[in-house]
Amino acid sequence: MNQQEKEIIALQKKAAERRKTGLFVVEGIRGYREIPHNLIETVVLSESFSRQKSALEIMEERNSRVVPDSIFSALSDTRTPQGILAVVRQIRWKKDDLSAPDRPPLLVILETLQDPGNLGTIFRAGEAAGVTGIVMDEGTCDPWSPKVVRSTMGSIFRMPFFTAEDLPAETARLADAGIRICAADMDGEADYTRVDYTGGSAFLIGNEGNGLSAQMMQMADTRVRIPMCGRVESLNAAMAASVLMFEAARQRREVSGR
Amino acid sequence: MNQQEKEIIALQKKAAERRKTGLFVVEGIRGYREIPHNLIETVVLSESFSRQKSALEIMEERNSRVVPDSIFSALSDTRTPQGILAVVRQIRWKKDDLSAPDRPPLLVILETLQDPGNLGTIFRAGEAAGVTGIVMDEGTCDPWSPKVVRSTMGSIFRMPFFTAEDLPAETARLADAGIRICAADMDGEADYTRVDYTGGSAFLIGNEGNGLSAQMMQMADTRVRIPMCGRVESLNAAMAASVLMFEAARQRREVSGR
Repeated sequence: MNQQEKEIIALQKKAAERRKTGLFVVEGIRGYREIPHNLIETVVLSESFSRQKSALEIMEERNSRVVPDSIFSALSDTRTPQGILAVVRQIRWKKDDLSAPDRPPLLVILETLQDPGNLGTIFRAGEAAGVTGIVMDEGTCDPWSPKVVRSTMGSIFRMPFFTAEDLPAETARLADAGIRICAADMDGEADYTRVDYTGGSAFLIGNEGNGLSAQMMQMADTRVRIPMCGRVESLNAAMAASVLMFEAARQRREVSGR
Repeated sequence: MNQQEKEIIALQKKAAERRKTGLFVVEGIRGYREIPHNLIETVVLSESFSRQKSALEIMEERNSRVVPDSIFSALSDTRTPQGILAVVRQIRWKKDDLSAPDRPPLLVILETLQDPGNLGTIFRAGEAAGVTGIVMDEGTCDPWSPKVVRSTMGSIFRMPFFTAEDLPAETARLADAGIRICAADMDGEADYTRVDYTGGSAFLIGNEGNGLSAQMMQMADTRVRIPMCGRVESLNAAMAASVLMFEAARQRREVSGR
């Protein structure tokens, strides 16, 4: 296994390696097609894949390489590799990128969200619901990890986000800028559909097991509750976030008359 | 491995075995606590678990057994077994059970939903949103499978459901009974928030890859679309179902003034 192959495996497995190099790995043909082309460093194809029709145009990329299927399997993060992966440069969003020109900010603030599938789902559903940006703490799982990237289904390239060293301070800064801070809280005082999200708004979403810390909960202007029927105590974090984000989207369509 | 242990493994792995016996397996202490007690056939504990405090009351169950940890691992469907599982009788809901006494029917109709996590999530989010029942076709994954049961987090015992041999005929029967049939369709003509779900309503949700069949789509009174921002083409089936179900819940709270 050569140096480049070892590097790819390290990028797949280690957040520290991704942080150090500013690179990450995208796998699969659908994932490949979502990558902005200027970000691609290298494309690696398996021998089997390279014989497919769709491989031809990809192999005209400046940096494509073909490796034996057995090597490709070792490089892949999936059990049934599709035979194509790319080493890609991470996007460094600036804080200003988290506000959109055409609508008030709609932010999601994540505290120590640990499940990669949940994080990826929040990126994807967030993009669909018109979220303008995501802020997370350092305890949240790495957005550039293979599982998160896969479950964002391309939204990782389009949803502005950043990791705050001090999440409460960052949240206070947003509140000072006039953004309404709404904590998702199953004991919250307000039915989430009775709170106005048409102005600048942010949803605070806590850790899957423990919810929001007391410190973050104190940052909230409003604690919003999703009323539950039956004997369900709480929704999964990604589901709760999605229900809130799509309610904000509904209200915003409502006032804009669209 | 004795006969009972072989039977448990068959129940974990084979839908046909579950169908034949009318039994299924629930794993983990949280799952165990959700089981209506009259449905429990047998409880199996690992030796390690049996030494825990919480095992004491369980071992007073009429049919509890302790097995070596190595045997328990073989019986378990999970990678890190908690050391407790129960063999449980399936609930046979009648069609009448899918309507609630206190509100108009709110149904979810699933065509060939294949991901167990999606099915489980629809049970759980559906219970939370006040869904009164779920109808599915024989192509939908088995609701009594370990992965579905796990991801329902107890809703499998509380959400009435049945499998229709002929899903279009069943849907027609519901339409004849005055239930508004709304197909989730990314090309649908109606914004899902502009359709009234306060009367008897059903959401048709299609297969993850292929959506609804033409035949099922034709059964719909209304094709509802979740408007999407950004470049997201579609939501995951469970996410789309949840967004629809919680919109119905919102409207129903709105009219009831709660």
